[in-house]
Amino acid sequence: MSKKAVILLSGGLDSATVLAIARRDGFECCALSFDYGQRHRCELEAAGKVAASLGAAKHNIVKIDLRLWGGSALTDDNLKVPDAADSHGIPITYVPARNLIFLSFATACAEAWGARDIFIGVNSVDYSGYPDCRPAFIEAFKECARLGTRAVDENWHYNINAPLQNLSKAEIIRRGIELGVDYSLTTSCYNPDAAGRSCGRCASCMLRHAGFVEAGVPDPTTYSK
Amino acid sequence: MSKKAVILLSGGLDSATVLAIARRDGFECCALSFDYGQRHRCELEAAGKVAASLGAAKHNIVKIDLRLWGGSALTDDNLKVPDAADSHGIPITYVPARNLIFLSFATACAEAWGARDIFIGVNSVDYSGYPDCRPAFIEAFKECARLGTRAVDENWHYNINAPLQNLSKAEIIRRGIELGVDYSLTTSCYNPDAAGRSCGRCASCMLRHAGFVEAGVPDPTTYSK
Repeated sequence: MSKKAVILLSGGLDSATVLAIARRDGFECCALSFDYGQRHRCELEAAGKVAASLGAAKHNIVKIDLRLWGGSALTDDNLKVPDAADSHGIPITYVPARNLIFLSFATACAEAWGARDIFIGVNSVDYSGYPDCRPAFIEAFKECARLGTRAVDENWHYNINAPLQNLSKAEIIRRGIELGVDYSLTTSCYNPDAAGRSCGRCASCMLRHAGFVEAGVPDPTTYSK
Repeated sequence: MSKKAVILLSGGLDSATVLAIARRDGFECCALSFDYGQRHRCELEAAGKVAASLGAAKHNIVKIDLRLWGGSALTDDNLKVPDAADSHGIPITYVPARNLIFLSFATACAEAWGARDIFIGVNSVDYSGYPDCRPAFIEAFKECARLGTRAVDENWHYNINAPLQNLSKAEIIRRGIELGVDYSLTTSCYNPDAAGRSCGRCASCMLRHAGFVEAGVPDPTTYSK
């Protein structure tokens, strides 16, 4: 019987790599994406292509509206996505409690589908400013998911797998290339144009491009100029 | 400056009482309800009336689709709501990871709105079968919310208030009556008819009615027969 896993899949480079790792590890995968009112909605199209290309057994898209309260440049039209990366403090692109919400849905999906593994592409190297990408949060969530579901009564726990936690962007890209990830299907831009082309200037674009350069891999991203 | 709190408000008896308690304690309240594909959607109308009658400053309704994966008699039409309460094990009306999801949204809402208090009407007396109603889960969530948000960098934490945790249904009703809750606005039935009238037979109806009887308060519920 195959092991089942729920994979949080954004359509970006990191989570595509995570799905490839879970598939390599023999998991039957349910990809889980969110339509949360983000500006960069071409992510969802990308997620669908990535899920299909890497052989996910299912792809669920959960629609939630984080614009109800905003609080991030990604979910509030009154806040501008900055061009340059500000490496101090919590970035304006931090979405309040986003990974907490995403992991909670992944837990619900896993519980209903009978999976005990959840994969998430958080990373402490490049996103140390985001509290919900740090190992301490992931550990706390693991315990919370155990105590808040039938796992606690049945004496098991969810494995919250974060295989990219300590990798640089270049290392993530090399890992993905080895596993056959087609990064031309993925999109990372916070501020793409209407055709889904990347801006090449936001923090996420900069980081992604530098990763390809450092990995010695041609950057397959389509930029708007 | 008034203290702000986010209150999870279902439209049922318990969360109405919680809102009344938070208001008595001087909080400016944002009520948060979920349209999650539940069978008993008249809950949402009830939540709106309760929020208005108790002076909530705002009422956000978040639409999420837990029917994507079902797994509960409340979110899957293939599963029947049982008539009688089964006091052993986790009930079929348990919705996978529901309070984990609800509290995650409450945290996001609180973070964006600037609240540090969250109120939830969980109760260990009558709902000990639901893992996500127990104190150990609430404590674990508190830590998880701290570590997954800007609270951790700013050295504070969310208070997850569960003022009904150890009260019987009759005690909850007496508390609410003292605080002026109009329970005729609330609905608790898992299986109401199209007009929103309660069935009088599901576990939730039985518990509610017994609570009014024990509290010595006339039951204001409208039953379908």
